[in-house]
Parts: sequence; structure tokens; C-alpha cells
Amino acid sequence: MQIYTAPLRDMGFVLNELHTDDGFGGLPAFADFTPELTEAVLGEAARLCQDVLLPLNRSGDEEGCTFENGTVRTPKGFGDAYRQFVDGGWNALVLPGEWGGQGAPEALGKLVEEMICATNVSFSLYPGLTNGAIAALTVYASDTLKQAYLPKMVSGEWSGTMCLTEPHCGTDLGLLRTRAVPGEDGSYAISGAKIFISAGEHDLTANIVHLVLARLPDAPKGVKGISLFLVPKFLPDEQGQPSVRNGAHCTAIEHKMGLKASATCQMQFEDAKGWLVGQPHRGLEAMFTMMNAERVGVGIQGLGIGEAAYQSAVWYARERVQGRSLSGVKHPDKPADPIIVHPDVRRMLLTMRAWNEGCRGVAGWVARALDAEKHGETPEQRQRAADFVALMTPVVKALFTDLGLESASLAVQCYGGHGYIRESGVEQYMRDARIAMLYEGTNGIQALDLVGRKMPAEMGRYLRSFFHPVSDFIEANSQDPAIGKMATGLGQAFKALQGATALIAERGLKDAEEGGAAASDYLRLLGLVAMGYCFAKASKIAAQALAQGSPDAAFYKAKIDTARFFFEKLLPQTASLYLTIKAGKGAVMDFAEAAF
Amino acid sequence: MQIYTAPLRDMGFVLNELHTDDGFGGLPAFADFTPELTEAVLGEAARLCQDVLLPLNRSGDEEGCTFENGTVRTPKGFGDAYRQFVDGGWNALVLPGEWGGQGAPEALGKLVEEMICATNVSFSLYPGLTNGAIAALTVYASDTLKQAYLPKMVSGEWSGTMCLTEPHCGTDLGLLRTRAVPGEDGSYAISGAKIFISAGEHDLTANIVHLVLARLPDAPKGVKGISLFLVPKFLPDEQGQPSVRNGAHCTAIEHKMGLKASATCQMQFEDAKGWLVGQPHRGLEAMFTMMNAERVGVGIQGLGIGEAAYQSAVWYARERVQGRSLSGVKHPDKPADPIIVHPDVRRMLLTMRAWNEGCRGVAGWVARALDAEKHGETPEQRQRAADFVALMTPVVKALFTDLGLESASLAVQCYGGHGYIRESGVEQYMRDARIAMLYEGTNGIQALDLVGRKMPAEMGRYLRSFFHPVSDFIEANSQDPAIGKMATGLGQAFKALQGATALIAERGLKDAEEGGAAASDYLRLLGLVAMGYCFAKASKIAAQALAQGSPDAAFYKAKIDTARFFFEKLLPQTASLYLTIKAGKGAVMDFAEAAF
Repeated sequence: MQIYTAPLRDMGFVLNELHTDDGFGGLPAFADFTPELTEAVLGEAARLCQDVLLPLNRSGDEEGCTFENGTVRTPKGFGDAYRQFVDGGWNALVLPGEWGGQGAPEALGKLVEEMICATNVSFSLYPGLTNGAIAALTVYASDTLKQAYLPKMVSGEWSGTMCLTEPHCGTDLGLLRTRAVPGEDGSYAISGAKIFISAGEHDLTANIVHLVLARLPDAPKGVKGISLFLVPKFLPDEQGQPSVRNGAHCTAIEHKMGLKASATCQMQFEDAKGWLVGQPHRGLEAMFTMMNAERVGVGIQGLGIGEAAYQSAVWYARERVQGRSLSGVKHPDKPADPIIVHPDVRRMLLTMRAWNEGCRGVAGWVARALDAEKHGETPEQRQRAADFVALMTPVVKALFTDLGLESASLAVQCYGGHGYIRESGVEQYMRDARIAMLYEGTNGIQALDLVGRKMPAEMGRYLRSFFHPVSDFIEANSQDPAIGKMATGLGQAFKALQGATALIAERGLKDAEEGGAAASDYLRLLGLVAMGYCFAKASKIAAQALAQGSPDAAFYKAKIDTARFFFEKLLPQTASLYLTIKAGKGAVMDFAEAAF
Repeated sequence: MQIYTAPLRDMGFVLNELHTDDGFGGLPAFADFTPELTEAVLGEAARLCQDVLLPLNRSGDEEGCTFENGTVRTPKGFGDAYRQFVDGGWNALVLPGEWGGQGAPEALGKLVEEMICATNVSFSLYPGLTNGAIAALTVYASDTLKQAYLPKMVSGEWSGTMCLTEPHCGTDLGLLRTRAVPGEDGSYAISGAKIFISAGEHDLTANIVHLVLARLPDAPKGVKGISLFLVPKFLPDEQGQPSVRNGAHCTAIEHKMGLKASATCQMQFEDAKGWLVGQPHRGLEAMFTMMNAERVGVGIQGLGIGEAAYQSAVWYARERVQGRSLSGVKHPDKPADPIIVHPDVRRMLLTMRAWNEGCRGVAGWVARALDAEKHGETPEQRQRAADFVALMTPVVKALFTDLGLESASLAVQCYGGHGYIRESGVEQYMRDARIAMLYEGTNGIQALDLVGRKMPAEMGRYLRSFFHPVSDFIEANSQDPAIGKMATGLGQAFKALQGATALIAERGLKDAEEGGAAASDYLRLLGLVAMGYCFAKASKIAAQALAQGSPDAAFYKAKIDTARFFFEKLLPQTASLYLTIKAGKGAVMDFAEAAF
């Protein structure tokens, strides 16, 4: 059964307690968003997600999207849900007030995103891609384009897409073939085929605004010859209303493993009218503005599904009676004990729980940096925030989505054979979670981004935005009676991370393949340390609250106990990761290609 | 794309080279099965699997089984394939000659099973369950029942099932409710509901023979009051032909994540006529004969899918061009290099490859023990083989199936976004692989079986059947110039295993939950050491062959290189596993139940 109640207490903790000393807080831009207001917003969002989106999750998966004669129908109920969603302004929660958005901080917005993804990740893509497109247009589009498109996109009346991938090129955009021919009126005629376009066609909005990567006639080869164009499905008339149908058509939708209520479209552009966004040949830059924001969002998909999987598994583990506790009968009134008494079931539940709380802690930190990057009061603050965001974006994307699948699979395991049956709802979490490891750059690409770009950037300055707070924390807390053991454990893992960093930096100088061979292990190692830091910090806060006799003792006690599980049962993975990184590229690269 | 060519060279290596010194070989019962004959059999099996079963794998998944008015239709082509399969005698390859089988050794049979599972795991369940039922009948049924049923089941004319699970009981069979009331003619009237019955109803055979667990009226409560009954779909007439329809009906089939061409049936028994198999109230014993054989078979499913996933990923990694090698352009003639040049893609491919070869090595060892357990020449040999089989059965079942899913997921990852599309064929491997971690006892139950039953059995005698050869090997080879480094690495992992064993044994004496909390980690630790042993041994043989100038140098070189990858990149997981085992049950069991 798909069970979900937004973890509001933990969300409040991450938002208002965990990161108060990170130097990213107290931004005047968000002075209105008091704890009282954010609490109210989270509560409202929870209700919408639980009452409107969750009930459509299984039915949306069963029904899927349908394609006929160029039009795409979303599953039953999605249209109503979308209207409620935009009527409540949820699509525009973090969008700039200038264009009609609510101007809320990302620190709040990412928590709402988590709820949306937990309850209906397919649904999340319709407003999600629109927000990515808005982000790119806000920065790069001309004022005319902004005026014509942003208000309607921010209101949710129109939606957006990002059209990058072509059949022969995904990761390697240098191979891109779609062409843009300049017209006499300043517009361009766009022609080419795109695939994997989420929300490329659907019945939720009156218009769809495609951001399309294409080559101008004079474009240099490779990634330096790609430009970005805005191509609407319907060209707006003089009143700004959708009018002439543009040559941007959906030719098919994909049949996928999961995410079935999200329309993944094959698009054909045939002399479609479009307008340049940003500078000629600089389209990738604009697209990456969009992409980087999306990557954090995709990480949140992993977390959201992980939380839903956890709650669904806990529900079943309390409900299902089977066998007796190894330490003696716990429920003599029942024919058997609920399976939550069994150590191996608890191991699975606590693994999911720890992954979720760990990811939420890290996400909260990164989200605050997203806010400070834009709205910080000093250039130094903005720079430090930007460094941290740049470093952590691939980690959030790849690690969270790996763990989202792991949690979903553990939930299926808790259900036993019943978890394999579609009716149980949990196998859908596995299928829906799987895509997040692939799109917006595969997780392998994220790891390369971390090791190849972010690690060496600015002589290690990005890395220091993470290493410094962690090492300061370890130093300050190793003797703390409440969390000294955790700080020491974190210290060991951090030492492994430092060792791995030095090793990769040194070897990578001579041989880029050394970084490539270590990248995935390094990303996970760094991510585990980041979670460990959040857990140790959280435990310190929790221990203080308990010592002060907080009325919320059960929450703080569980926080410390989850952290303990993380330190004893999950963080030790860092030991293996350091060993495999140390082993170097030889075993990976020496293997003869013909022998595979 | 689903790609599969049976890895005949590696299969031959496992069958004829790897385990020759294990003391399980040279059994007179199999003197006819010379290397020439087994090679021919493997070649024939490969052709059947590749040409007949593989083409039905995707179509079977798309079409699925259909249920209407109590009858189940298998997907198009399954009927023809089944006829070819039984006409070739493949269903009866390892069945006893006495009943019409081919009497081949399991060491050969498990390799053929691997091919069947690699090409069509849904198909494999139809003959697979029949063989389990035959195993139980051969040992426990009366001569009358044997005469009436075994010849037709061995010929494949009739199929078999095992009916254990009920809606409220899977793992905990003590809760079982199906009733058996003795009749006047020595038969019983069976009534009750069963679920998750693979091949419970289908259109491939003229009759279906259900083995059903039920309670006699005077049965004690719990697992000691369960008896086993043979309940045919059609009662045989005096000529032994299917005649009166029995009260054993399929009421629905499950809609599942995968394995869609296998009919998973809900069965209703209503005063169905059945006959007792074995002693009253001793049904579990007979069922476990069947179950244990099935568990090794389920492990092989994981391996088979893992191999198919690997080959399909290698094909794509050669085919798909994207980006350039980090060490310089490799294919200047192409717009980009094939992705097999990228370190992270190679890491994924080699991980799959190493899991597959590691599992195949271990499977070959266990299969030889299965043969020696039955056909060993001395009681000592049979005993040692039985000990080893008992110990390794849960390891093969759980570890291989965990790794099968991991490999399938890695294959999807190699395909990038394309892997998420059903047409690619690889996402099916993930869905099909997932069930194997659940049925025939979840992997958590396997781990408990290992730690709770097999580890302490006979004062550790089962364990010694594994520990002794491993420690002898390490001692004999640590100084070997060719594989000394591997032997030393194996020695470290083995020390961790010994340490973990002692710890669990000691703690478990006082507190069974200590074993339960460590069980899954311990199973994986033991399994990794078993694979490491097989890889080190294989490398020694390969090094000798290379030194002797074998014409098969490419094979032996790749074997050593795969082993190297295993030792450098996978075996280090044992370090983390030992740490998490040492941490004990506290973090798992102290967490308050209400706090989940």
C-alpha cells in the first residue's frame, strides 16, 4: 500500500534547526518567511500532496499516458489535480515575485518538492520542467520574450520543456544536429528530431513552451556551436493568446519501465518558429542554468520516493504478522508477531530511514546555499554559496537517486512476495525511482562532473566550502560527551575522503582516466561524509534539546538513534570505498576491450 | 537489445577445470558424461535457448499471461517452445533414468539452467517447478503414486506445482489453514486457498500435479501439523489418462512487476481429491526437499539474468558512440568513441562480469556437491557434500539473486535513458530479476537460515566443509608468484569471515537477535569469500595454462583480469561488512518501535 504522511517535524527541523550556523541564513530577501509562515505552507502542501496527488499515483501508473493523432492524454484526474496545483500557486512557490511567483526560499521549496515527488513523481515533471525553463528564460531571454512568456508560465497557464536529447546524442551534445535557420523577422526556423522530452505534449495547459538546442548555419562544430531557442507549441497572437499551431509536434510517446503518467515524447520540429535565447552558440551555458537546477530536483525525486517507500514499508511491517520475535513472543494475542520485531526487517527499515534523513539534511543545506547564492548579502557569501552548490549538485543528483532506488527495493523486500504484485504499490516505487539515475545526466556523468570539474575547480575552492565546516565540526566535537563517538567516526570517514581526494588529484594530474575510474566511488564517499556531518550535527542539537527537557523528546531521541544506525551500519561503507579508490584504474582500464 | 550467447568456454572451464580437486568428482554414476558429451549437450542447449527461448522473452513480457473463466493462456509461442523443450528431453536432463530422465549430473544441469534463465526466466518456471515436485515425489511418494505420476511428469506431458503460500502466511507456514479430510478410499478431500502458485494453471500440459500443504483433522498446531498431498488437476482414469476434473481451480492470476509470462496463480481447492505424500504431519520435511533444490535454482536465475544483462550491456557499450576517451580519441573515423572506452562504463561492465563469473564458479562447486551428496562413493564423501550443499544453498539463493538485480540495474545504467525504455529489453531484466530475491524464502530468510541453522549445525561441521579448502588454499598459495597477491587478499577477507563467525557464534549463544541482526551482512561476506576462492583458484589454473603456452590464451588472460578486478574493486566490500557485523545488534534493536 502506498502510504505517505509528510514528515513535517523532520522537515521543520532541517529548515529551522539543523543548519542555522552555516552562514547562509538570515537573508533579508526572505524576511517574510518566518517559521510560522513556513510551517503553515508545509502543512498546506502536505494536505494537497496527500489528498490530491497520492490517490492518483497508482491509477496514473496503471493507466499511463495515451497518444493518438499527435495528442497526448494524461491519466484520469491529472487535469483536475494540475488545476488545483496552480490555483494554489504551488507551481510558483519559489518563482520570482516579479513575474507573479511567491518568492519563497528554495530551502522551503525543496521540502515541498520532496512531498510532491513522494506522492506522485510523474505529476511532478509537468510543473518541474516548466520551472527549469523559467529559470533559463529569467536569466537569458530578451525582455520581449520574458514579457510574452514568463507571466503565463509562472501562472501555470502554460508549461515548459527542455529539448536537448536526440536519438544519437544524449550525454555528448556536441553531436547535436537540429538546425536553426534565421528568418527575416528576427525569428528562426527550427528543424530536427528530439527524444525523451518530458511533458513535450500533454493536455494540462493551453500552450507548451519548448526550449530547444539547435545549430545555427554558421555554427562551429561540437558543443561550442549550439544555441538555445524558445519554440512555442502555439504562436501567441497580438493579445498574447495561443493562436497559430507551430511546427513542433509529438510523434510518439515512449513505453517505459515506470514514470508512466509522465509523457516522454518524441518531438519533430519542422520549420518551427523560434526565437534565440541568450547569445548565438552559447546555448549550452543557458541550458546548464536549467540543467543544474533540475539536477538538484532530480535528487529530490530520489529522496521523495525513498520516504514514501519507507513509510509504506513501516506500515506493512506493523500490519503483517509472521513468525515470532527471536527474543520471545511479543504479541501473544495474535497468531504471530508483526514482522517489525525481526532484526533483519528493522535493518531494512532503518537503512531506508537513515538514507532519507541523511539526504534531507544534506538537501536542506544545499537548498540554503541555493538561496544564498542568489540573495546573499555580500559577494563573499554569494561566492561561498555558489561554490558549495556547484560541488554538491552532482552529489545530490547521483547519491540521492541511487539511494532512492535502494530504498524502494528494500521496501519491496519488506513486503516479501506481496511487494512484487502491482497492487501492493511498492514495486512502482522501484520502477519510478529508476529513471532518476539516468536523466539530467546519468549518475556516472555526475561523478565525472564532481571529479573532473568540481574537485579541481579554483584550486580546490569548491571543495573547501565543504571540507572546512566538516573539519571544524570534527575538531570542535570529538571530546563532546554526547556525540564524541560520532564525531570520531565522522573523522575517520573524513580522513578517508581527504586521502582519496589527494590521491585522485595527484594521479589525475598525470592521467584523467584515474579520476574517471574512481569517480563513482568518490562521489558516494563524499556523499556519505556529508550525511555523516548532518547526522552528527543533528545529534548534537537533539542531545541539547533532550538535556533541556524538550517536550519533543521522542523526535530528538529517534534522531539520535537513527544517527547511531547510520554511523554503525552505513558509514562503514566508506572503508571499502577508500580501498577501491586506492586500487586505481589498472583493473578497470587494462582489461582488453576485445575480451568483454 | 536482449543479447545472449551462452558463455560455453567459461562453462566448460567451470565444469572440467576449476573444481577437479574438490573431492566431489569422478563419480561412477556419471561415467558416461565425458567432456565430449557434456560439451555437445551444452552446445545443443545453447542453440535451443538462443534460437527458441530468447526470441520469446520480450514478447512474453509484453503480452503476459491472460486469465479467463478459470483458464490461463501463456503468451504466443510458449506452447511450441515447450513442446520443443520436452521433445529434446531438456526438462528431464538431470532426472533419474529410472523414470525416463537423462540422469545427467547437476554440474551439467545447472549450466543448462543458467542458459534457460538467461534467455527466458518466465519460461524456466514451467519445467522448473515440475522438477521440484518430481524431487519430492521420488523420495516421499508411495510406489502407486510414483507409478501413476512420475513417468508423465518426467516426460513433460504433465507439469507440477508446489502449493505452500496462503494469503496470510508465507514465511510462517505454521499459520497454514488448508484442510485435508480423510475419505474412505484412502484419499483426502483438500480445501483451502493458496496464492503465488507458479504455473498453477496454464495451457502447456494436459495435466497439472499440485503438491499441496494442508492440515489433517488431528494435526497439532504449528509447523508440526502440516502434511503434503498430491492433488492433480484431472484425476487419472484407469489407463492413467486425465479424466475427471478435480476441485483445484485457478481463481485469478497476479499482475506483477515482471516475470509476466509466468502464470502466478491464486488457487482454490474445494474438496479436491488428493493423496498423502510421505508421513502425516511431516509435510514440511518433504516440501523442504523440494524447496532446497528450488533455492539453488532460484540463485541460478539471478546468475542467468546477470549474464544476459552483461552481454546486452557490452553490446550497447560497443555500439553506442558518445564522447571521447579521456586518454585521447580512439576512433577518429567515428563522430565519437564507443562508450566502452570510458572508465565508469568499464567499471560497470566489469562489475557485472565479475559477479557472473564469481557466481558461476561457486555454482559449479555447489552443483558438484549436489551430485556427490546423492552419488558419492563413500558415506564420508556423501556427508561432506551434503554439509557443503546445506551451507551454501542459502548463499547461492540470496547472494546470486541480489547480484542478479544489481547486474540488471547496471545494464540499464550502461544504456542511459534508453535503458528505461521497454524496447531496449534491459529494464525487463531488472523487473524479472526482482522476484528471485523474494520467492522460495526471502533473502532475509536465507540469511537467517545460514546464521541460525547452518552455521551452528553439527558444531560447525557444515562451515568446515567450506573453511577447510579455503584456508588450505590460502596457505598453499600465498607465496605463489602468479597469484600470491590474490591469495593474500583472500586471506584478509577470510580472516574477516572467521572473525565475524566467531563473534556471531559467541554473541548468538546469549542472544539470538545478534545473529539475526548480522545475518544479511554475514551471508554476503561468506559469499564474497567463496567467490574470491573460486577466482584465485581459477587464476592459478589460468596462469599455469598461460605458462604452458595454451592456445586459449585470450580466455585465460581475461579470467585473470576479471579476477584482478574482483580482488581490487569488489572484494574490499568485506572490510565494511566486518565492521557492520562487529557493531552488533544495538543500533537495530534499540530503536523504539513506536518511533518508526
